Amino acid sequence: MSSPGRVRIVIVGCGFGGLFAAKALRDTAADVLVIDRNNYHLFQPLLYQVASAALAPADIAQPVRAILRTQRNARVILAEVTGIDLAARSLTASGQRVDYDYLVLAPGAVDNYFGHADWRAFAPGMKDIEEATLIRSRLLRSFERAEIEEDAAARAAELTFVIVGGGPTGVELAGAIKELAVDVIPRDFRRADTRRARVILIEAGDRLLPSMHADSSLRALAQLDELGVEVLLGSRVTRVLAAGVEAGGAFIPSRNVIWAAGVRPAPVIAALGAATGPGGRVAVSADCSLPGHPEVFVIGDAAYLVDARGQTVPGVSQGAMQMGRYVARLLAARISGRAAGAPAAFRYRDLGSMATVGRSRAVVEIGGLRFGGLMAWLAWLALHVTTLIGFRNRAAVFASWIYSYVFFRRGSRLIVRPRPGGDGQPHDHTD
Amino acid sequence: MSSPGRVRIVIVGCGFGGLFAAKALRDTAADVLVIDRNNYHLFQPLLYQVASAALAPADIAQPVRAILRTQRNARVILAEVTGIDLAARSLTASGQRVDYDYLVLAPGAVDNYFGHADWRAFAPGMKDIEEATLIRSRLLRSFERAEIEEDAAARAAELTFVIVGGGPTGVELAGAIKELAVDVIPRDFRRADTRRARVILIEAGDRLLPSMHADSSLRALAQLDELGVEVLLGSRVTRVLAAGVEAGGAFIPSRNVIWAAGVRPAPVIAALGAATGPGGRVAVSADCSLPGHPEVFVIGDAAYLVDARGQTVPGVSQGAMQMGRYVARLLAARISGRAAGAPAAFRYRDLGSMATVGRSRAVVEIGGLRFGGLMAWLAWLALHVTTLIGFRNRAAVFASWIYSYVFFRRGSRLIVRPRPGGDGQPHDHTD
Repeated sequence: MSSPGRVRIVIVGCGFGGLFAAKALRDTAADVLVIDRNNYHLFQPLLYQVASAALAPADIAQPVRAILRTQRNARVILAEVTGIDLAARSLTASGQRVDYDYLVLAPGAVDNYFGHADWRAFAPGMKDIEEATLIRSRLLRSFERAEIEEDAAARAAELTFVIVGGGPTGVELAGAIKELAVDVIPRDFRRADTRRARVILIEAGDRLLPSMHADSSLRALAQLDELGVEVLLGSRVTRVLAAGVEAGGAFIPSRNVIWAAGVRPAPVIAALGAATGPGGRVAVSADCSLPGHPEVFVIGDAAYLVDARGQTVPGVSQGAMQMGRYVARLLAARISGRAAGAPAAFRYRDLGSMATVGRSRAVVEIGGLRFGGLMAWLAWLALHVTTLIGFRNRAAVFASWIYSYVFFRRGSRLIVRPRPGGDGQPHDHTD
Repeated sequence: MSSPGRVRIVIVGCGFGGLFAAKALRDTAADVLVIDRNNYHLFQPLLYQVASAALAPADIAQPVRAILRTQRNARVILAEVTGIDLAARSLTASGQRVDYDYLVLAPGAVDNYFGHADWRAFAPGMKDIEEATLIRSRLLRSFERAEIEEDAAARAAELTFVIVGGGPTGVELAGAIKELAVDVIPRDFRRADTRRARVILIEAGDRLLPSMHADSSLRALAQLDELGVEVLLGSRVTRVLAAGVEAGGAFIPSRNVIWAAGVRPAPVIAALGAATGPGGRVAVSADCSLPGHPEVFVIGDAAYLVDARGQTVPGVSQGAMQMGRYVARLLAARISGRAAGAPAAFRYRDLGSMATVGRSRAVVEIGGLRFGGLMAWLAWLALHVTTLIGFRNRAAVFASWIYSYVFFRRGSRLIVRPRPGGDGQPHDHTD
């Protein structure tokens, strides 16, 4: 899979960690092979906008090939990694053996149902394009059913949306769904009063956005309250059924439950058989390598690392990007033999964090600064428009947002039917 | 389902025929109920651009509710019509009984495999968003497999794209796929030489675009030839398998066959038990009504009508729009009791036809005028940009086209996995 004599670096996963590592290896004398099960890099922080019908999938996803087109030392293959042989320094990708000199594992995370896999059927999570599209179709279909449902209780259940998990995803999704129901679609319906739709955000802990400062938690709570989102704190979900969700001892009838309660590393990590830390993440060494395997690195959401300053690297895009760039620098130094150029242990640089609650509502923390409201929302907007990868997406997303925010409309309200067996070529389902 | 005493008009299907009928009934004293199995109106003439990764689904589909939002006498429901009781003047939509005074059937067409339903699995058609997205994913996946395939013959089969049917859909798709392979993606791949991809267009008749003038057929053939598309005329497909297609006695190995060979009316038409004309279309009276049922109309692709001037109304969007508006005028006159206002028998007004073959290549017929090349393409572009429904789509599509045509890129190259059983709520699969 590589030119003879060249160092072979294999990167598994092309999220923020894998992509930033690949790009930072551009000028090294190594062959870089990027393997992903999707053909696109996803701008995951905006996935909730696909789920809530504001953006189309193509607005926040860009083909990996297009991104790495001009990087001559990078190859991309669409494949699923099913096994890793650390001793042989090889892995299996869609049945093919791939050898490496260095391996960078950046597979990201999947939804964590904490032992309740059966809940997924009634409470899909939102980790990829397919799930976000599914959630969008389910939301819109609930409104459609409410329009023809004659029974008041059944109609109320259709118009009750429950989001489990009060982290950034849950908060952003709750705000976006409430806005959809209240501002965007009421005039589209004749019988169902979508403004009366209930959006309930359930969090097991005692505050929202636990990874942020308590001030931001309170601000987000107040902003959600203004919007009319019902927030249940200290409430643990004990059952999820087709008819609703049981939380804090009470049953909430709902036809639309969304899971945003937690993540765990992608399944390929299990193939490592490595020691794990909190959340099943791989406990890595100070240089992001797998203990005992200096040639293998785990970065991003799949890694657990307390850095040199005692800070746990959070499972956010900034953490993944920084780890990706760090490992690339480390590899570049090793390959060139300039040990002096090798960076010291990885240190996470907290660039701040933010969550948006809706139009002109957000919370932001940058350095010691914490603020909310319109200013926070404008900061959020500026950051996301400028950091979106690719000119086309940036322009298209900006146009869509202007459209949404000025005209109170949403541009991507398609209900798409999953088609079991629609594709006759059986291998299409497996890779 | 309607206010007491008001005339109830039910429209089944919200393509060009149904939508134009509904809109033209805006000022009548009738309740209009629009039933569609999708929640969107699709700008079908551009569906091939979704299949060839140039446009995103949301660019060419608009929620029916949003379109009819301000029309107070119109209601929209998302439902599948499974039965029609002409004697009782009622129909069954997703299990509910719906009564009508007047019924307008505009269900459109589905792919016709002419008795070979088993071919669909290997040669999907392109009639709706799901199919177009499936074709897009299959195309892109073929290029991906070609990149890692070691066997030369298997790689060639991945890079051979066969389109069956030389009508406008087949011609436009063939040109768009060839351009994708030659102009858009070659630099994205390292091993597969996508410029060597073969695109083969198979037509059973002796010329392309049989509904247009022979001059246009020759022009389209010449333009496809310039692009490098191989056109097989007078060649009938006799077998479609996972490994390829048999046509004119020869077997063409291909992993990507697309069906554009014909259509038949949507299944709901069978529920009528009416006499059918060519292609299974319902033979309607001069006023588009079902013979013996002056209160039931069939319009668009599902109807067969030779008009007062002896012209067979073609199964194109113009035919559907004109029939929709005609029936609305007829109903408005009947409802108001002004028989004098009722239009005479339906007459099709041929506004011309066009097909695009690629960037700066098209054929156009308007009145006695027939031309090709850049001028034709600009005419095609102007018409499609101006007739796309909805401001948002128009702007987004125009931006996407500029992007595609100036930068030789395509904005919507996502491979989306169908997820059998991904949605746990069983009713989601049935409506």
